[in-house]
Amino acid sequence: MTTNANPGDSLLLTDLYQLTMLEAYLEQGCTETAAFEFFVRKLPERRGFLMAAGLEQALDFLERLRVSDLELAWLRKTGRFKARTIDWLAQFRFGGDVDAMPEGTVFFSNEPILRVVAPLPVAQLVESRLMNIIHFQSLVASKAARMVLAAQGKRLVDFGLRRAHGAEAGLMAARASYVAGFDATATALAGMLWNIPVSGTMAHAFVQAFDDEAAAFEGFARARPEGLTLLIDTYDTEAAARKVVALAPRLAASGIHIQGVRLDSGDLVALSRSVRRILDEGGLRDVTIFASGGLDEDDILNFARAGAPIDGFGIGTSLTTSSDAPALDCAYKLEEYAGVARRKLSAGKTTWPGRKQVWRKYGPDGRMVRDILSTTDDVQEGQPLLQPVMRSGRRVLPSPPLSEIRARAAYDLSLLPEPPRSLRPYIHPIEVGDGLIRLTEAVDLRLARQAAHA
Amino acid sequence: MTTNANPGDSLLLTDLYQLTMLEAYLEQGCTETAAFEFFVRKLPERRGFLMAAGLEQALDFLERLRVSDLELAWLRKTGRFKARTIDWLAQFRFGGDVDAMPEGTVFFSNEPILRVVAPLPVAQLVESRLMNIIHFQSLVASKAARMVLAAQGKRLVDFGLRRAHGAEAGLMAARASYVAGFDATATALAGMLWNIPVSGTMAHAFVQAFDDEAAAFEGFARARPEGLTLLIDTYDTEAAARKVVALAPRLAASGIHIQGVRLDSGDLVALSRSVRRILDEGGLRDVTIFASGGLDEDDILNFARAGAPIDGFGIGTSLTTSSDAPALDCAYKLEEYAGVARRKLSAGKTTWPGRKQVWRKYGPDGRMVRDILSTTDDVQEGQPLLQPVMRSGRRVLPSPPLSEIRARAAYDLSLLPEPPRSLRPYIHPIEVGDGLIRLTEAVDLRLARQAAHA
Repeated sequence: MTTNANPGDSLLLTDLYQLTMLEAYLEQGCTETAAFEFFVRKLPERRGFLMAAGLEQALDFLERLRVSDLELAWLRKTGRFKARTIDWLAQFRFGGDVDAMPEGTVFFSNEPILRVVAPLPVAQLVESRLMNIIHFQSLVASKAARMVLAAQGKRLVDFGLRRAHGAEAGLMAARASYVAGFDATATALAGMLWNIPVSGTMAHAFVQAFDDEAAAFEGFARARPEGLTLLIDTYDTEAAARKVVALAPRLAASGIHIQGVRLDSGDLVALSRSVRRILDEGGLRDVTIFASGGLDEDDILNFARAGAPIDGFGIGTSLTTSSDAPALDCAYKLEEYAGVARRKLSAGKTTWPGRKQVWRKYGPDGRMVRDILSTTDDVQEGQPLLQPVMRSGRRVLPSPPLSEIRARAAYDLSLLPEPPRSLRPYIHPIEVGDGLIRLTEAVDLRLARQAAHA
Repeated sequence: MTTNANPGDSLLLTDLYQLTMLEAYLEQGCTETAAFEFFVRKLPERRGFLMAAGLEQALDFLERLRVSDLELAWLRKTGRFKARTIDWLAQFRFGGDVDAMPEGTVFFSNEPILRVVAPLPVAQLVESRLMNIIHFQSLVASKAARMVLAAQGKRLVDFGLRRAHGAEAGLMAARASYVAGFDATATALAGMLWNIPVSGTMAHAFVQAFDDEAAAFEGFARARPEGLTLLIDTYDTEAAARKVVALAPRLAASGIHIQGVRLDSGDLVALSRSVRRILDEGGLRDVTIFASGGLDEDDILNFARAGAPIDGFGIGTSLTTSSDAPALDCAYKLEEYAGVARRKLSAGKTTWPGRKQVWRKYGPDGRMVRDILSTTDDVQEGQPLLQPVMRSGRRVLPSPPLSEIRARAAYDLSLLPEPPRSLRPYIHPIEVGDGLIRLTEAVDLRLARQAAHA
C-alpha cells in the first residue's frame, strides 16, 4: 500500500482499538452474533431534521474490505498482535447483514439509520470507517437539504471542493448535495464517476490576467461560448455590468449568447438590483444573475425576503464543511449480543437496546406527523423505514440509480411538516413503542441485578 | 479510473472552470508566466495564529499529477472540450516552481504560505486541489496547536477518524495534529504510512458484550495486557473504578499492570477526582486517568484551572473537523502575470499584488514581535519565511522527516508572544514594506488608467 492507493479502502483506516479489541474478542471467544446500530443522538442546534446518505459507499466498503499483504506485513512488524489475529485478518471478508434507511430518507434523533448484524469481531471491526462514511454524507445531505428548501427552485451548484476536508470530502459532498436536490457540482470528477451535472464559470485570475476587463470577457466568450457566465466583481461590479452590455451585441453578431453574470463579493442584494437594472436597460433581460461568495441557507432566505433578483447560487464552504454544525453527534452502538439486548448507561449517552425499526406515520395531507421507534418484532402502524440491504455480505438489490435516490429525497422533503420545511425550529414527535419500553425495562433489571451481584 | 483509486490523484478532482479556463487561456495565447499565492485573508474568531501544514502532500500532488486514459476518454465524451485542450491535458506535467513556508511554521493573516510560479494555464489548473490539501492540514494543525498549548505537556491523542470528513480527512488530520505536537493517533493507517505512534484503549461495546463489567475488564486485560487502559464509564464510573481496584492484585499476580483508566462521559472534573481518590486509596497511584468525549482546548484549559487530576486526553471531533472554525478564509490568487503585478479589488477581498516574502522579527527574549510583508526583492531585516521547495517540477531538497517538521512546530509555538501562547485574543503586528506599498500604488494607478480608458 502506497500513499496513492485510496486510503478509504484500507482495513487499517480504523482506530487501533478496533484491532486490539478484535484480538481480545478472539482470545475470549466473543464471536457470537452482535447487532450494532448507527444513529444520531441529538440534532445540531437549528436543525429540525436530517437526511440519510452514503449507504452506497458504505456497502461498497463492506464488499471490498480486505487487508493487503503490505498491511499484514506492517501489522506483524509492529509486534502488537498475535499470529492468530493476523491470520484472522488475512482471511477477513465481511459476511454480515445490513439493514438501512434508503439514501435520501429524512430522519430524526435516536432513530437508527443503519444496522449491522455479524459476529461481534466483524461488526466491531468495521465501525470506524462505516461511521466515517455515513456520518459525512448524511451531514452534507442534511445541510444541502436546508439550502434546497431555502432556494425554492432556484439553481444551486456545489462550489465547495477547495475548502472541503480533503479529496474524499470534496467528492462525496458533490454526491450528497446532489442527492439532497442540488442541480450541479463544479467538481469534474463527480461528473465522471456519477454522471452528476457539472457546471462552472470563470475565476478572477482570468480577468486579472488581461490588461483590460472587457478584453478578458470577450476573450473568454469567444473561447468558451457554451453556457457563458461572466464574473463581474473583480474590480467595479457595476462598471463591469456596463461592459457586458456593451459587449453583448458584438458577441451576438458572432452568434454568442451571454447566459449569465456572476457576483462573488459586496452587498449582493444592492448589487443584484443595480446589475439587473443595468442589464435590463441594456436589453439583456434574459441574462441571469448568479451569486456566490461565502453564502449559506440564511443568506438565500434573506435574498428571497429582500426580493433580490438573483437566479441561482454557487455554494461552497458552508455546504461542504456543514459550517454551522461540522459534525453530527452520531454513534454506532452495540444493541444486542448473543441474543441478549444490550444498553449503555453512560451519563448523557444512554442508548435504546435491541434491534429496532422506525415506523413513520403520515397525516391526511400526506405530511409526516410522528415516528414510532420500537423493536423490529413489535410491528407498528405506518411505514417501516429500515429495509434489508445486505445479507451474508451480498447486496439484496442492485444499487438504485442516483436519480431514484434524488427523487426519494425530494419526496421526503415535500412531506416534511411546515416548520422544518421553512427551516423554523422543530422537534419531530417520536413515540417509543411498548415492545421497546418492555425490552428496556428488562435490560435495566438485568443490569441492576448484575450490579448488585458484583 | 474506478472509484477505488485515490480520488486525490485525479486531475479531474478540480472545479470544472479550471478546465474551461484552461481552454480559454490556450485559445487566447495566455501562456506566459504567472505567480499565484496561497494565503488566509482573515483569521477565524478566537484564533491568534495559524500553523502551516500539508506541503509534503501538496508537492506529492504536483509531482504525480497526470490525466489517465479513462479520464481523457470521459473529457472527450462530454463534448465540452476541443481536441487541442485534451491533447494538452494528455501531455500535462507540472514543471513549475514552488516557494513555501516549511510545515510547522506559525503564520498570520495575509501572509503567503505558498507561491506557485508556472505558465498561467498550469498554475491555474492546480488551484482547486492544491487549496484542498493545504487548507485542510493547516486548519487541523492550527486547531491542534491550540490543544497542545492548553495541555501543557499532558498526553494528547487524536481520536477523530470516525467524524472526520471522509477517509483522507481522517488520515491527514492524524498527520497534521502530530505535526502540531500531538503525541499519538488512534488511526492505524497513519502509523503505517508515517510511523506516527498509534494508541488505543477499548470501546463500550467490549464492556457491554460481557454480562459482567469486571469480567470484561479481566478478559480484556488478559488478552491485551500491553499499555492496558480500561474504559470505566459504561454503567457507573465510580463502581467501575472500584472494580479496577479489586481486579489489580489478581492481574498483578499474573504480571499484568494496569496503566490507566479512561473516562468518556459525565462531569469529568468531579469524576476524575473521585476516581483518583478510589484508585489512590486502592493503592493504584501509578494508574493514570485519561479523558475523552467531545473535548476541545477550552475543556483542557478548564480542567487545568479546576486542578482536575487528568493525565491525558483523547480528542476527536473538535480536532478533526476544527469544529469552532471548520474552514479558513483562504485564497490562491494571481499576483503577477507576464511580468506585471496583478491585484483584485473585489469588496472585502482586495489582494496585495506581486511576489511576496514574509520576514519575521524576534525580540531580545527570542519571541516573535512583528512580521514584515513585502515584495521578494525588497529585502528586509528578519528571518525570511518562504523558501524554495520546488524548481521546474522537482523538489529542491528531500522531504524533511516528520520529526523535523514537528520540532519546527514546537519551536515556533515556543516563540509565540504570550497572549496567543495562552490562547488569549491577539493580533500579530504585520508591517507592509515600502517595496510592496510602492508596487501596490503602481498597480492601482495602472488599473485606474485602464478604467478611465475603458
